[in-house]
Amino acid sequence: MNRIVLIIIAGLFSQLAASQNALSEKYNLMPWPQEIQENNSKFKINEALTITILGDDSKERVHKAATTFLRRLSGRTGVFIDTGFPVESKNAAIKINFETVSDLTIHQNESYTLEIKNDEILIQAKTDVGALRALETLLQLTTHNTSEYYFPGVTIQDAPRFVWRGLMIDVARHFQPVGVIKRNLDAMASVKLNVFHWHLTDDQGFRVESKVYPKLHELASDGLYYTQAQIKDVVQYASNLGIRVIPEFDVPGHASAFLTAYPELGSKDGYKNNIERYAGVFDPTLNPIKEETYIFLKNLFTEIAPLFPDEYFHIGGDENAGKHWTENKEIQKFKKKHDLKTNHDLQTYFNIRLEKILKKLDKKLMGWDEIMTPTMPTTAVIHSWRGTNEGLKSSTLIEAAKKGYNTVLSNGYYIDRMLSVKHHYTVDPIGKAVLTKEERKRILGAETTMWSELVTPLTIDSRIWPRTAAIAERYWSAKEVNDVDNMFQRMSAVNLQLEELGITHIRNRDVILRNMAKGQDITSLITLSNICEPLKIYSRNEGGTEYKSFSPFTLFADACTADAKDALIFNKNASQFIDNKSNRSYGKISYYLEKWSRNHVSFTKISKNPIVQPLAALSKNLAEISKSLQRSLQTKKITQEEFSVCKNYITQLREPFADTELAIVDSLEKLLFFCEANYLTK
Amino acid sequence: MNRIVLIIIAGLFSQLAASQNALSEKYNLMPWPQEIQENNSKFKINEALTITILGDDSKERVHKAATTFLRRLSGRTGVFIDTGFPVESKNAAIKINFETVSDLTIHQNESYTLEIKNDEILIQAKTDVGALRALETLLQLTTHNTSEYYFPGVTIQDAPRFVWRGLMIDVARHFQPVGVIKRNLDAMASVKLNVFHWHLTDDQGFRVESKVYPKLHELASDGLYYTQAQIKDVVQYASNLGIRVIPEFDVPGHASAFLTAYPELGSKDGYKNNIERYAGVFDPTLNPIKEETYIFLKNLFTEIAPLFPDEYFHIGGDENAGKHWTENKEIQKFKKKHDLKTNHDLQTYFNIRLEKILKKLDKKLMGWDEIMTPTMPTTAVIHSWRGTNEGLKSSTLIEAAKKGYNTVLSNGYYIDRMLSVKHHYTVDPIGKAVLTKEERKRILGAETTMWSELVTPLTIDSRIWPRTAAIAERYWSAKEVNDVDNMFQRMSAVNLQLEELGITHIRNRDVILRNMAKGQDITSLITLSNICEPLKIYSRNEGGTEYKSFSPFTLFADACTADAKDALIFNKNASQFIDNKSNRSYGKISYYLEKWSRNHVSFTKISKNPIVQPLAALSKNLAEISKSLQRSLQTKKITQEEFSVCKNYITQLREPFADTELAIVDSLEKLLFFCEANYLTK
Repeated sequence: MNRIVLIIIAGLFSQLAASQNALSEKYNLMPWPQEIQENNSKFKINEALTITILGDDSKERVHKAATTFLRRLSGRTGVFIDTGFPVESKNAAIKINFETVSDLTIHQNESYTLEIKNDEILIQAKTDVGALRALETLLQLTTHNTSEYYFPGVTIQDAPRFVWRGLMIDVARHFQPVGVIKRNLDAMASVKLNVFHWHLTDDQGFRVESKVYPKLHELASDGLYYTQAQIKDVVQYASNLGIRVIPEFDVPGHASAFLTAYPELGSKDGYKNNIERYAGVFDPTLNPIKEETYIFLKNLFTEIAPLFPDEYFHIGGDENAGKHWTENKEIQKFKKKHDLKTNHDLQTYFNIRLEKILKKLDKKLMGWDEIMTPTMPTTAVIHSWRGTNEGLKSSTLIEAAKKGYNTVLSNGYYIDRMLSVKHHYTVDPIGKAVLTKEERKRILGAETTMWSELVTPLTIDSRIWPRTAAIAERYWSAKEVNDVDNMFQRMSAVNLQLEELGITHIRNRDVILRNMAKGQDITSLITLSNICEPLKIYSRNEGGTEYKSFSPFTLFADACTADAKDALIFNKNASQFIDNKSNRSYGKISYYLEKWSRNHVSFTKISKNPIVQPLAALSKNLAEISKSLQRSLQTKKITQEEFSVCKNYITQLREPFADTELAIVDSLEKLLFFCEANYLTK
Repeated sequence: MNRIVLIIIAGLFSQLAASQNALSEKYNLMPWPQEIQENNSKFKINEALTITILGDDSKERVHKAATTFLRRLSGRTGVFIDTGFPVESKNAAIKINFETVSDLTIHQNESYTLEIKNDEILIQAKTDVGALRALETLLQLTTHNTSEYYFPGVTIQDAPRFVWRGLMIDVARHFQPVGVIKRNLDAMASVKLNVFHWHLTDDQGFRVESKVYPKLHELASDGLYYTQAQIKDVVQYASNLGIRVIPEFDVPGHASAFLTAYPELGSKDGYKNNIERYAGVFDPTLNPIKEETYIFLKNLFTEIAPLFPDEYFHIGGDENAGKHWTENKEIQKFKKKHDLKTNHDLQTYFNIRLEKILKKLDKKLMGWDEIMTPTMPTTAVIHSWRGTNEGLKSSTLIEAAKKGYNTVLSNGYYIDRMLSVKHHYTVDPIGKAVLTKEERKRILGAETTMWSELVTPLTIDSRIWPRTAAIAERYWSAKEVNDVDNMFQRMSAVNLQLEELGITHIRNRDVILRNMAKGQDITSLITLSNICEPLKIYSRNEGGTEYKSFSPFTLFADACTADAKDALIFNKNASQFIDNKSNRSYGKISYYLEKWSRNHVSFTKISKNPIVQPLAALSKNLAEISKSLQRSLQTKKITQEEFSVCKNYITQLREPFADTELAIVDSLEKLLFFCEANYLTK
C-alpha cells in the first residue's frame, strides 16, 4: 500500500471513530456496542407493542427475558402495554430470532444484531443468551420526546471482547440474603456481565447448608447460610439471565469457619477456633498432611458440586502464611520427607490433590494467583488478584497466560477499595502486553470483586453500583472505548435504570440519613454526603480491628459513596475556573460555596444527637472556608490573615472524619492558592 | 358507695388517665401498653451492653430475637456494642426471663413486664413470645440527649386486648416474593401483630407449589409461586417472631386459577378458563356436585396442611354469585334433589363437606362471612368482612359471636381502600355492642386486609405502613387509647423505625419519582406527592377494567399515599386559621401557598416527558390558586372576579388527575370562602 492510500484509510477510520464518539454522546448505552449505525427510523412505544420469539429450540429463557422486558418497559414509560407476554404471531412488532440454547460455558456465543425500524424491531442471535443481551441493549435505547416514548432507529452488531465477565460477591464476611443476590444478578445481566463468582466461605462464616457435614452451617454461620434449595434457585435464576455461577470454597487458609465446625482438621492441635468477628488474615489453616482432610473435602465437594453445574470450581488458595504449619512439627517432618521446601510448596501439594478430587467431579480447579507455582498443572485457572499494590511489578495475569494457564484478572477491579470508577475503568486487562494468539486466548476475562468486610445488605448495592456498570464495559467493549467523561455521562443514565431492578444504591442513602436525623430534615446531611467519600484503600477499619462483623454499618460513611456527586462537579469547575476563569465555572463554584456556607445552620438543628455529632467539625469548618472563599472570589480580595485562617481550615478538613474524607478539599485548597496568588491585599 | 366517694374515685381515674395521656406525649410507644409508670431511672446504651436469657425451656426463639435486638439497637444508635450475641452470665445488664415456649395458638400468653432501672433491665414473661413483645417495647423506648443514647426508666405491664391480631396479604393478584413477606413479618412483630393471613389463591393466580397437582403452579401462576421449601421457611421465620400463619385457599369462587389448571372441576362445561388479568368478581366456580371436586380438595389440602402447623385453615368462601351454578342444569337438579333452595344453600353444603375434610386434617375451617348460614356448624370461624359498605346494618362480627361462632373482624380495616388511618383507628371491633362474657370471648380479634389489585413489591409497603401500626394498636391496646392526634405523633416515630426492618414505604416514593423525572430534579414532584392521595374506595381502577395485573404501577398515584404529609399539616392550619385567625397558622398556610406558587416553575423543567404530563394541569392550577389566595390573605382583598377565577380553579382541582385526588382542595375552598366573606372588595 502506498502512503496516500494509508492516509485515506486512516482518515476513514478516524471518521468512523469520530462518528462513534458523536453517537456515544447521544445514546446512553453501557457497555458500548462493537458497531452502531443510525438509520433514521423511529419505533414508537405504545400499548399495541408485541413481541414474538422465533426459532425451534427451547424458548423458555427468552420467554422469561421478553416478559421481564415488557414489565420494565411498561414500568419505565408508564405505557399500558396491552399484551403482557410474548405472542405466537408473525405480525408481532419485535421479532426475536435465535438458533440454539446456550450451553452457558466459556465457549458460548453472546453476539447479536439489533435493528430498529419504524414498525419493526429485529433481534438476531446465535444463542438465546445473545438475544437476552440484545433485549438489554434495546431497553437502554428507550427514549422520549414531549409526546411519546420511542426506540431510535439504529442498527447494532455486538459481541463481547472477553468471554469471562464477572462479579464476585463475598457473602462470608457479611451474609447477603437471596434477595440481594437476585437483584444483583438482574443488574449484572443489564450490563451484560455473565459470571457470578460466589465467595461462600471464609474465616467469618460458612454459608452453605451441608447435609454431609451439617456442623459447617450449624456451628459456623450464626444461622446465616443458604439452603441447598436456595442455592439451586439462585443458580437457576442466574441461568435464566445467561449468567454462570462459580462457587468458591476458600482453602486451606481463610478456614476459621471450617475449623470452628471441624477443629480436628486444623493444623495446630488444641487451637481454639472460632468464627472470626474481625477482618484480616488469620492463622487457622486446614491440615494438608492428614488424609482426613482430603476425605472431608472430597465428600464435601462431592455433595456440593452438583449444585453448581458450571465446569469451574474455585478453591481460593490465597493468603495462607502457613503460621500454623510452621508451628506443627508433624507438618514440618512431612515437608522434609516429601522434599517440600516451603509452606508454599506444601500448599501446591495440597492444591494438586484437590485438583484430582475436582477432576473426578468433572470440575476444573480455579484459584487465586498464589496457586501458580512451578509444579501446578496448567489445567488450573489462575485468578490474578495481586499486582503493584502487593509489591509485584505487574499483575500476575500476563505471567499466567505466558506460562500456559487460563486466567482471569481481578487486580485493578477491587471495588471495595472505594476508589473512583475512573481508576478501574482505565485499567485494561491486557494493556500493552505483547501476546501470541494462544496466550491472548488464555486470558478469559476479568472479575470485579466485592469483598464484604464493610458492607451489609443495606449498603452493598451502593458499593457495587454504578461503578460495576462502567467496569462491565471494560470487559465487553472494545479497548478503544475509553473516554472517561463520556463514560460518566452514560453511567449516570444506567445508574438510574438500575433502580428499576430493585438495586438500592440510591434509595438507601436517605434511609441511613433519616435514621441519623431521627425524623428531622436530612437536607444538610445529604449536602455533606454529596461531597464526602468513605475512606479508601482499606484505611477505614485499619488493620481490621475497628469494626466487628456485627458493628453498625448505619453511619455517615455508609451513606457516602465513591465518586461523590457534587464533588465531581465542583472539582471539575474549580479546575476550569483556575485554568481559564470562565464565568460558567465561577457560577457553579459560587453556587456550591453558597450552599455549604449556609449548610451549617440547618446542620445544627439536627446535630443534638450522638450519631450526628462526629460531623459537627466538618460541617462548621466547611461553612467557614466556603464563606471566606466566596467572599474572596467575589471581592477579589484576600488578606494574609484570612489566607492563614483558611489554610488552617484546609488542614483540619484534610483529616478523616467519621470514616470519610472530604472529596473537595484539594479544590478548596487550589482556590485558596488562586486567591492568594491573584487577590492578596497588603 | 356514697356520691362523694364516687366523685373521689372518678377523680383518681381521670388523674390516672391524664398522666397516661402525658406519658403518651412523651414515649413513642405503639401499641400503647396497658400500664406504664415512670421510675426516674436512666439506662445508658453503650458498648458494654449485654443481654442474658434465663429460664430452663428452649431459648432459641428469644436468642434470635435478642440478637436481632442488638443489631437494631446498634444500627439505630451507631453504638459499637461489643458483644453481638446473648451471653450466659448473671451479670448481664438486660435479663430476659420466661417460663415456657409458646405453643403459638390462640391460647398463648403474650403478657410481659418490663422494668428499666439505672444499671439493669428486667424482662419477665410467661412465654418466650411475651419476651419478644417486651423487646420490641424496649427498642421503641430508645431515646437520646446530646451526648448519649439511653432507655428511660419506666415500668411496664402489658398484655393484648385481643388474641388474634392479624395482617392479611393477598399474593394472588400481585405476587409478593419471600423477601417482601419476611420484611413485613418483621414489621408486624415490631407492632405486636401475631397472625399472618396468607391469601394464596384467587382468580389471578395460584401461588403454591403442589406436587400432587403440579398444573396448579405450572399453569396458573405465570411462574410466580412459592415452593414448598419457601413456605416452610416463611412459616418458620414467622414462628421465630411469634407470628402464626393462616393459609387461605379461596373456594368455591375466585377459582379462575384453579380452573385454568383443572378445568374439569368447573361448573360450566366448555368454559374457557384463564388466569384473570383484570380485577373484580368473576364467574368460574368449582363444581360442588362432583365427587372429583372433593377428592381434589382433600388431596390438595392433605398435601398442603402439613406446611402450615396452625390449627386454622381459611377456605375463603366469599363473593360467589353462583352464575355458573345457575347455568348448569345438573347442578340445579342436584339442588332440588337435596332440597337446597338457593345457591347459597348449595355453598353451605360445599362448606360443610370441606369442614369434614379439614377436621380429619386437624384443622378448623375459617371463612369469609358468607359461610355463616343457618346450617353451618359453629365449629367454623367467621371472618367478618362485610358491613355498612356492603348494605348491611353493621358488620357481621357481633351477629357471628351471638350465634355461637368464633369470629374475627376485617370490616373497617380494608387498607386497600386507601383511607386515612384515622378512619381505621376509630373503628373499635366491639364498639357499643352488649355481649355476654361467652360472646365476648368468641370475638378473637381482627385482621387488617391488604388486597393487591393495585400493589406490587415496589409499592405494597407504602400501602400497608404506617397505617397498619396504628391499627395494630387498636387490636392490642385498651379501647380507651383513642386520641387521634396523639396516635399520629407516635405513629410518625414508628414510621421511621420501620425503615430499619427493610420496609420500603418511604424510600420507594423517590424511586418512582426519579423514574418519572428521568434523572432530573424531583423536588417539584415530591411537593405534589405530599398533597395528593391515590383515589379512594376502589375508584382507582373503576370496575377493575383499567389496570391489568401487568399494567405499570410506577405512576404518580403509586408514589402517593393515604394521609399525604403536607396535606395533613395544611388542612389543620387552614381550619385553625379560619377558626381563630392565629398568626402561627397563617405562617404555615403562607409557607405552603408560597411553595406551591413557585412549584410550577420547577415542574415545567421536567414536564417534557409523557409520564409526567398528566400532572401538568394540576401543577399549574395549584400554582395559580395558591398565588391568588396568598395575595388575598396578604392584602386582605379579593375582587369578585378573582373569586370567580379561583372558584373555577377549585372546580378543576376537584377532578381526579393521574388517579389521585388533591387532599387540600377542601381547605383551599374554605380559605377562598373565608377571603370572600372577609375581604371582598367591590
